[in-house]
Amino acid sequence: MAARLDDLRIALAEISDLGRARALLAWDERTKMPPAGAEARAEQLATLARIRHQRLVSDELDRLLDQAATETSGLPYESDEASLVRVARREWEKARRVPAELRGEITRASSLAEHSWVEAKQRSDFPSFLPHLERNVELKRRYAACLEGFDDFEHTYDPLLDDFEPGMRTAEVAAVLSDLRSGIQPLVAELADRSSAIDDAFLHGHFPRDAQARLAREVVEALPLEEDAWRLDPTVHPFATAIAPSDIRITTRFDERYVGTALWAVIHEAGHGLYENGIARELRRSPLARPVSLGFHESQSRMWENWVGRGRPFVGWLHPRLRRIFPEQFGVVDPETLHRAANKVQPSLIRVEADQVTYNLHIMMRFELEVELFEGRLELADLPEAWNARIADLLGIQVPDDARGVLQDVHWAAGSFGYFPTYSLGNVIAAQIWDAVRESLPDLDGQIASGEFAPLRDWLREHLYRHGAKFMPKEMLERLVGRPIDVAPYLRQLRERTAEIYGV
Amino acid sequence: MAARLDDLRIALAEISDLGRARALLAWDERTKMPPAGAEARAEQLATLARIRHQRLVSDELDRLLDQAATETSGLPYESDEASLVRVARREWEKARRVPAELRGEITRASSLAEHSWVEAKQRSDFPSFLPHLERNVELKRRYAACLEGFDDFEHTYDPLLDDFEPGMRTAEVAAVLSDLRSGIQPLVAELADRSSAIDDAFLHGHFPRDAQARLAREVVEALPLEEDAWRLDPTVHPFATAIAPSDIRITTRFDERYVGTALWAVIHEAGHGLYENGIARELRRSPLARPVSLGFHESQSRMWENWVGRGRPFVGWLHPRLRRIFPEQFGVVDPETLHRAANKVQPSLIRVEADQVTYNLHIMMRFELEVELFEGRLELADLPEAWNARIADLLGIQVPDDARGVLQDVHWAAGSFGYFPTYSLGNVIAAQIWDAVRESLPDLDGQIASGEFAPLRDWLREHLYRHGAKFMPKEMLERLVGRPIDVAPYLRQLRERTAEIYGV
Repeated sequence: MAARLDDLRIALAEISDLGRARALLAWDERTKMPPAGAEARAEQLATLARIRHQRLVSDELDRLLDQAATETSGLPYESDEASLVRVARREWEKARRVPAELRGEITRASSLAEHSWVEAKQRSDFPSFLPHLERNVELKRRYAACLEGFDDFEHTYDPLLDDFEPGMRTAEVAAVLSDLRSGIQPLVAELADRSSAIDDAFLHGHFPRDAQARLAREVVEALPLEEDAWRLDPTVHPFATAIAPSDIRITTRFDERYVGTALWAVIHEAGHGLYENGIARELRRSPLARPVSLGFHESQSRMWENWVGRGRPFVGWLHPRLRRIFPEQFGVVDPETLHRAANKVQPSLIRVEADQVTYNLHIMMRFELEVELFEGRLELADLPEAWNARIADLLGIQVPDDARGVLQDVHWAAGSFGYFPTYSLGNVIAAQIWDAVRESLPDLDGQIASGEFAPLRDWLREHLYRHGAKFMPKEMLERLVGRPIDVAPYLRQLRERTAEIYGV
Repeated sequence: MAARLDDLRIALAEISDLGRARALLAWDERTKMPPAGAEARAEQLATLARIRHQRLVSDELDRLLDQAATETSGLPYESDEASLVRVARREWEKARRVPAELRGEITRASSLAEHSWVEAKQRSDFPSFLPHLERNVELKRRYAACLEGFDDFEHTYDPLLDDFEPGMRTAEVAAVLSDLRSGIQPLVAELADRSSAIDDAFLHGHFPRDAQARLAREVVEALPLEEDAWRLDPTVHPFATAIAPSDIRITTRFDERYVGTALWAVIHEAGHGLYENGIARELRRSPLARPVSLGFHESQSRMWENWVGRGRPFVGWLHPRLRRIFPEQFGVVDPETLHRAANKVQPSLIRVEADQVTYNLHIMMRFELEVELFEGRLELADLPEAWNARIADLLGIQVPDDARGVLQDVHWAAGSFGYFPTYSLGNVIAAQIWDAVRESLPDLDGQIASGEFAPLRDWLREHLYRHGAKFMPKEMLERLVGRPIDVAPYLRQLRERTAEIYGV
């Protein structure tokens, strides 16, 4: 048996290597590549995507999977071997329906679109970006059409969502987001008049880039990532990626007028990194060596950013460090004031800078726009107008230009339709996990306050990270917290946090 | 015809993309990768090498090449189409003899060996590196055995050499190096007592890394590389690589005690970059989109480093810049003194820091050691001793430790046996080309003195760079200078330069 299973492992390891190579090319494209390299890079990325796809959908892999399925049929569901065959088979089934040419073209087009987006955003010029966006949507429509009927997909958006949140359906996401909206909109209304009482002026001002870079590095170094297994680079739109579980690339951007971006965004990306870094060594070079889903991935980035990073214990730990690097701005700010500022709720334009409460409203409107686009109820040319109308409606603010509106995020340029809702799913899942963590680690606050982050990481490793993608998101959540997805813990925790801050 | 040729072009473009992706992974490994990523990176590189190899040796490519050969048979030898078929066919013939597994294993082993070498060099610990070196040599022996009989290879070292200098044979290289030795050894003896008269103390001292980095950047920015098409990064062992002709990666290292390393090594690497950057757009994503050979590649790095970079006109241009960045060290140094120091001939331990004359002695002894190793006349365990004996014999100096001896170069760690002689071939070829350049550009000195490097680049582009690898090295040299390889111009130019400096 071992010999046959080894053949499967080797074939899957090559597919994994091709995916990781592609990840490195994408990381380089966004952090290091000279601009003139863009055209060649798009071709290189497309070739890797195409070849990976060809290997993934091959008859040879089909045969290896069949043999391995027979051989592993007696093993427990949660064994590495049975999980490998199960997860790889689902991936094969899905990929098999998509032509390699289309797979490559999606990659090529989105690589070019991203460069167009960077320039369009700089000039706040949506029309110049529109043809790229149209191409991305057209290709994703064709992609979704290929997957019609797979795994009981019902909605045209289901296949897109499934790429990020396997097994989750459009209707389920809509229900979760609707529950969230019911809980959040009253909270936002309640806090509307109280935000002016919270002083966060000291987070704004002038923060030299070099000093911010030192701060960001110091914060990431304090987090429990494996030594010598990560690096931190500046970029336009922050992201994290894993070239291997022991080769984590965190990126961030620095806004010299606002220190919050580099500070909490870098913890967010490090949270992604901690998850990838914690995947069991035994799963490396396999399709199991990745997080369960984007929702789970985001649950961890958001947990480290918000539950840890904006919590009172962490803010207490952070305070002397901030004060040392920026003595002028933080000289007279006490930890309590910093904590209140870090959790101020106030509608704003930019998703990645939004507070924890209104953040979800940013996600809801993006999800609705995506669904309407793919249902054919909204034209791409009308997107800026629709965007601005919804921001006015949901958040009560006017969008001054497309750079701070429809062009603010990289996702649509990157062809990542179906990604946005995973941010709110991540919030909801993070809250459910946080309840479980707190029950298991009674001294968590004390540990965080003294900069001991390893116990939290170890708990998350043991219960979540090490399993990689062995389980579907719904299975994983049941295993972790014994319940299906539920917005109640998140809404309760948001109310607890705002009560701390606002006293309501 | 066009349609069939297009199929070949597409197949070769994918093979090219895989090679470029691998180049990026290798660049990242040497400049950016967190150390813990090494093991996974070796696997990723091996997978890309194996898949590239599989595509290159496929029956499908054989068929496409046959069809294209028929279709292009009426085209001129130097046409892009006929050249593509001819060059790709030779590559297919050669690769076809080598199993993909071996190709992948060579890549994997050398990636791991390079990491071992970095550590071994730091500790000057040859024994810890020896097993990796043994593995590299064993794999290259197997590789050479696969190619026995190809293209009338006679010597066991011929296949290794052919990978870097297509069509060149061990006996020819030995003859060129022997001619060089006959001309150089008397020159070194003549100058032996005169070097103490040349003051280069101001190149040594303390040169802060940041200031050196500024200098290096300023120098590369002044060279005529395409804008937005290159970047410069620090590394352990400097190299240049092209992720595409419009995506050039130059690397350098900084020795805070000696400014010459960063200064002339960076011009050297930029010279490599200028060549890659000048390859015709029409050849991109094909096997023609690379320099003729390593010898030609080195002819350009060395031409920009030494013929341009250490010439009186360039030194005059450089002088005020050096003075501005290092006022303390260069305040009292005049251009003539700097010129003499830049061309001082003095036997030394480190190849990459050697002067233009003794440099070739470093190459000769490496070539001899490699040939003896592959002929089985020298054991790897005896390499340090053999190294030290020859350095004493050729250069009259004692090697204090292996870090400054046998461990100084990355090549053997990287599995690049057959590479070293191309440095001296490069010197010889550069001299032949330089004679032709000077005849065509009578105002070259004046242009260089005023920082106008574009006319030189344009001449080299027109006559050399744009052709990529369309011709074999011998053909290219005939086309360029109308003669076969000949050490006379190099020896004459060395004597002219030393006469300027030493007045002999």
